[in-house]
Parts: sequence; structure tokens; C-alpha cells
Amino acid sequence: MSVETITFPAAVLRAFCERTFEHFGVPADDARVAADVLLRADLRGIDSHGVARLVTYVDMLELGRINPRPKPFVVRATPSTATFDGDNGLGLVVGPKANALAMEKAEACGSGWVSVRNTNHYGIAGWYVMEALKRDLIGWAMTNSTKLVAPLWGVERMLGTNPIAIAFPGKEEPPIVIDLATCAAAYGKIEIAKRRGEPVPSGWAIDKTGAVTTDPQGMIDGGALLPLGSDREHGGHKGYALALMVDVLSAVLSGANWGPFTPPFALRQEIPARSVGKGIGHFFGAMRIDGFVEPDEFKTQIDDLVRTFRATKPAPGTHGPLLPGDPERACETERAKSGIPLVLPVVRDLRGVARRLCIPFD
Amino acid sequence: MSVETITFPAAVLRAFCERTFEHFGVPADDARVAADVLLRADLRGIDSHGVARLVTYVDMLELGRINPRPKPFVVRATPSTATFDGDNGLGLVVGPKANALAMEKAEACGSGWVSVRNTNHYGIAGWYVMEALKRDLIGWAMTNSTKLVAPLWGVERMLGTNPIAIAFPGKEEPPIVIDLATCAAAYGKIEIAKRRGEPVPSGWAIDKTGAVTTDPQGMIDGGALLPLGSDREHGGHKGYALALMVDVLSAVLSGANWGPFTPPFALRQEIPARSVGKGIGHFFGAMRIDGFVEPDEFKTQIDDLVRTFRATKPAPGTHGPLLPGDPERACETERAKSGIPLVLPVVRDLRGVARRLCIPFD
Repeated sequence: MSVETITFPAAVLRAFCERTFEHFGVPADDARVAADVLLRADLRGIDSHGVARLVTYVDMLELGRINPRPKPFVVRATPSTATFDGDNGLGLVVGPKANALAMEKAEACGSGWVSVRNTNHYGIAGWYVMEALKRDLIGWAMTNSTKLVAPLWGVERMLGTNPIAIAFPGKEEPPIVIDLATCAAAYGKIEIAKRRGEPVPSGWAIDKTGAVTTDPQGMIDGGALLPLGSDREHGGHKGYALALMVDVLSAVLSGANWGPFTPPFALRQEIPARSVGKGIGHFFGAMRIDGFVEPDEFKTQIDDLVRTFRATKPAPGTHGPLLPGDPERACETERAKSGIPLVLPVVRDLRGVARRLCIPFD
Repeated sequence: MSVETITFPAAVLRAFCERTFEHFGVPADDARVAADVLLRADLRGIDSHGVARLVTYVDMLELGRINPRPKPFVVRATPSTATFDGDNGLGLVVGPKANALAMEKAEACGSGWVSVRNTNHYGIAGWYVMEALKRDLIGWAMTNSTKLVAPLWGVERMLGTNPIAIAFPGKEEPPIVIDLATCAAAYGKIEIAKRRGEPVPSGWAIDKTGAVTTDPQGMIDGGALLPLGSDREHGGHKGYALALMVDVLSAVLSGANWGPFTPPFALRQEIPARSVGKGIGHFFGAMRIDGFVEPDEFKTQIDDLVRTFRATKPAPGTHGPLLPGDPERACETERAKSGIPLVLPVVRDLRGVARRLCIPFD
């Protein structure tokens, strides 16, 4: 089934996002970074995390639920660690500042680790680790998020899709960019299947009774996503444990809300029963490569590793293994040239924002 | 099918392991730690990583493939990072020393991160992160290992079962201890199914043609394990990416052998086609909780989180979600009292070692 889209140059969408954030009083420098995080998602083909979410940011800013001019501060620090309070700013603004702090600490003492509270949705985790690449650092990024995923053997939504990202630079080869949600499949894929009237594969979701379901509506109506590994037999306890790890590092360590109490991003989502901290939580890390090995030697080995893995004998019906980050990089190259295709509901949302805020769009 | 076992007190097995290591010239302090790592695996029910492996360590020591009296050294360091060369010692000896270095760095500057080369199999990753708990630190441990796992869309064994471990202390509740291999199912489970003449679940393994197989022999004869997530649809690319992350942090960062070139642990396994570094690699991390938040506050929140997750509505036919580390802790409590049941082939191996080395066993 083909989906009708309208294609926009990245620059047009970027300028629109910037002006939208500025409309709510976000300082120009912050608006520029926030727009960059969103656009990078669209360029890399992670459409669920790009301009499609602008309308939600607008809703939150309009209702005063997000602080457009936060004064984030360091709550506590050692030479290589810190807790950062985002002052309820946009995650797209707080995240980059906290990530920069981790990188500064790494440059000063080998590594830097920053747990962040009182923040909001920060876009794609991959953006942060690609920033670290620019400074020849190995970057780590995690975040917790609104509950969608059941722990293995549980029936309720208790965890977010809690992603883990890390990137390693190559020399002649492109970097390895890992960015993965710790659930079996993204919520967006459930929504797409629902729109198409198609079932989802077994192992993605349970319904509200806890039974595995292939009906997307069954998951949407009070069901839950399954963790990476799906069931006990296939390692569902491992995906659950990884999601829990992300939750503790991002939220328990910083004093944010964890697990089922993580506040929702969209307005239509349920407000948690109680508050156990401030906002949602992120976790950033950065490590100096030369804190371990000569960077040139590291990158030469990464090149060798990348070529070795590409040369793996391919499974039947495939072209062989990819390296993490390959599909997103290919998409970025293509979309930087030919533009970003947006589905009609997203275009409608953006036009709606343009009308409401009197900002020219298209 | 019940399996015949003989039960030994942990103290008997511990003493036997110590004397065996000492027989080969391992210093008494090192032998004690090495035996502790092995016994902790048996106590916690991870039978594949405990005394069942002693005979392999003996083979390696007897052939001079492992250095019984290594002089490990720091290759390069910053205040919070280091590369450690294990001088080809037992992983059970080198690992604890490198882990201790990570913890010392954490105590000095908030966090410590140590990548290790020129080392060997280090036992269970969980041992290292439980050591960190004793010092009120959040410990991380990873290691690469001999190839057994295919990257998604590949037909060859290219990666080890590359585990990730991390632990978080509670206050009144027991700690959360995460220790997971990044493949869908352990190789030991394939061997057990083979012995029982039973098929394995689809999603665990492929045969040498790359076809998914439920025949354990199909995997053993030149096939491979699948990464966590199993196939593309269920997130097999995520398990593959996590295994690659562990490989890079443990081996590329330290200058050890990575991917398919990681040397084998057992003698019967294939020697890799080329060498790209020294020995296998580990990666340890430690973070001071008070580098982020008041430790008492952190532990109180962990207690709340543990109780919240235990109170999740149970899936049909289950008692509800466990917390990572629950099954191992229950096993440890039981086996500390009633002893460690060993299957007959393991007892035969240990008796063989006792005869060869003239060390009393039972």
C-alpha cells in the first residue's frame, strides 16, 4: 500500500520549526538546536521523532507545560559525573546542554556521565551520540519515556520504549551508530498496521488481558508492547532488564519520574497516578578514545571490523549484514538531496500550527 | 526428564578449585578470587560458567596457553579511564584486578572505565557488578567471547554471546542485578536439547545454510546462534547491535581480538584465521552513586521501584514480573544451604582433574 506524501526541503521545515519555537519565547540559539534535533530525525528516516511531533511540542508550550526559557543547573557533580536539572525545558534544548556537559567532562578527565531530571522528550537518541563523534568522543545516550511496554510476565504498561544509543567513529568507513529502543517493535508500527487494517506479528504486543495479540487495536485498547526478545523463551526478560537499566540510569539516578510514573508526552495520554520525581529523565555519557587507545589505531580497527562484518556470508534472500546506522545514513544522503516526504496528516498538523501562530509555512 | 546429579557443599568445590589453580603456580590470593568467581556462578545457578569449566582452565594452564602468574599493567590512563593489559592471565584473575581499578577510579573521580586486552574467559559478568555493590558503586561489566552468534542477515558465526551486566543497590529490597547475554538463547540450552533429543524453539539458531533451524545438531554443525530479537521482525538487528557494542568496548578499545577473531576458550574450538589484537577483551565500569544523588535517596527509590514492578498485574499463568537477579538470588540462598548439584559428566571431569593433579576431591 503506497501512502500519499508531500515532499519538503529540509531547510523549509527547519526554518518553520525554528520560528515556531521562537514564537513561544525559546531563545534563538536554543530554537536552532531544537529544530536541528527534529530535522535530523526526519533526514535519517525516523519519521515518528521528527517534525511529526512539532504539534505536540506546540500543545505543551501553549499550555505552559514546558518552560520555553529554562535555566538548567547542575545539582551535584564530581569531575566525571553530574546530575543536571533541566528546569522543565524542552528536551530538545535541555538534552543538548546536558550532553555537552558530559563531553566537557570527558575532555577534562577521560569520561563524563550526566543524569538529567526535570526534562521532556528529547528527540532521537542518535542525535546526541553523533554530536560526540564531532569531538572524537564515544557518546552514549539513553532516556526514559511514557509507559508503553509491559515487563515480562506483567499485563500493565510499566516502562517506556527506553532507547540506548552509542556511536563509534571509523577512519575511512562511516561511523557505527547504534540507536535502538528496548522493545520488540516501535509503537509507530502498531499504528501503521492499524491504519492499513493489517495484523502485527506475534511477539510485538499483548492485549489488556495479557494474551499475545496480532490485532493492533488490541494493543492500543489497554494492551502493551512487549520488550525486546518478546517472550521468556526468546529472551523477553533481557529486553525488560535493558529497559529497566535505562529507567534507573535516566530517572532514579537523577531524581526524575521512573517506570509507570513517567509523565506523558502527548496531551491525550493518561496522567500517571503519582509523581515520584521531576519530569522525565535522560542519561548521557562520553568517553575520550585517547583515554584508552591511540584514536587513529582505534579507527583503523573499526574500519577493519566494518569491512569484516560486511563480508559475512549473506543469509538466503538478503545482501548480508548491515552495520548499525547504515539504513539511516543512506536515508539521510537521499533526503538531504531530494527532500523530506511527509504524510498528509503531518502536513495538515504543520499547516494548522502555521495558521494558529501566523507563521508562513507553504 | 530428570538429570542425575551429585550434590557437593560449596566449600568443598571452592577448596578444590583453589588447590587446582595453585597447582599451576597461581598465587594463593589469585587462586582464592578465581575460585570465588567460579563458585558464585554455581551458587547462582549459572552452571555453565562454574566448576563445569574448571577442566578447560586446567587444559589451558597445562598447555601453557594461560599465564598463571601474570603481571598485568596499565597501558594508558586518564583520571576516569584506563586500558589494562592482562598479560595473558586467567580472566578470573585479570578481570577482578581490572574491575578493582575501575572502582578505585570511581572513588577518586566519580566514575571509572577500564577496557582490558590480553585476557581470557572471566566467568560470570554478574560477579563483577556484585563486587561494585559492596562498595556502594554502580558496576558495569562486559566481555567479548569466542564466535557463536551470527549478525542479522549473516550465515557465519561472527560474534560471541557478549554479555552486559549492571547492578543497582536497594535499601531494604535486594539489589537489581542484570546479567544478560546478547543472544536469544544460551549455547548451553542447545546442548541440553541435543542431549535430550528435543527440538529447540524457532528463533534460537540457524543452520550452516542460514535457514532457521529447530534441530540443535543443525546449529552445532556449522550453524550459529541468533542475536537477541532473533529475526528482523522481532528486533534481531538490536541484539546484533548490542553484541557489537560489547565487542567494540571490550576489544577494539583495548586492543584485544574482536568479532570472529576472538580466540576460543575450549581446546576443541577452531583457532581464528587471523589475529587482530591480544587475547580476548573485557570492559568494566563503576560509578559513585553519590556522584549523582544522595545514596540513601537512590536506594529508597529503588525499593519503591522494585515494589512497584512486583505489584504489576500478572500475565495469565504467571505470578507476575520478577526483578532481574531474583532467580539467581533464590538459587544462591538454596544452594548455600543444601549444596551444589553437579551433573555426572562434570563430576567425572573434576575427578579426572583430581587424579591427574593428585589433589584430593571426594
